[in-house]
Amino acid sequence: MDLDKLVHQPTRLQIFAYLYRHGETSFPTLKDDLDVTEGNLASHLRKMEDADAVAMQKQFVDRRPQTTYELTDDGRELFENHVETLESLIDNLDDS
Amino acid sequence: MDLDKLVHQPTRLQIFAYLYRHGETSFPTLKDDLDVTEGNLASHLRKMEDADAVAMQKQFVDRRPQTTYELTDDGRELFENHVETLESLIDNLDDS
Repeated sequence: MDLDKLVHQPTRLQIFAYLYRHGETSFPTLKDDLDVTEGNLASHLRKMEDADAVAMQKQFVDRRPQTTYELTDDGRELFENHVETLESLIDNLDDS
Repeated sequence: MDLDKLVHQPTRLQIFAYLYRHGETSFPTLKDDLDVTEGNLASHLRKMEDADAVAMQKQFVDRRPQTTYELTDDGRELFENHVETLESLIDNLDDS
């Protein structure tokens, strides 16, 4: 069983799941909905960006800068594979 | 969402799942079936013992000492809660 630590780390697993489900999301929304600190969130998003799992976009909304994040195709695939691994781990529990 | 790091760490998640499914298991069997090094396995089992999630037993089989491990009731409960959390994370992906 191969559980990629990039995806498996608890806070990142939640970020992956959130972005997978909700698509492009602003930094403040992520921070509020996942209930993590700004520093913690920024650090995890940076790791995900470094791995090309997440793409960042900066734009202006009402003249204020807004940073949004979304999973890349690679990021979606990584997450889908991870969920499959977890599902098979859980399914195998019933085979005993 | 609360993902307990004791259970969530990838190698330990596999040890939990293995012991949950197979019950009491000897150290060499765990090592072979999970394909981990002796030092790595011993270190994770010690953490699980320290948390009272796993109970160790030493006995003699054919005059050779054998060490076996099994989940405690607390360990089973921790793992079951963890699987429920992962299942709800996965189920929620479809609600978008």
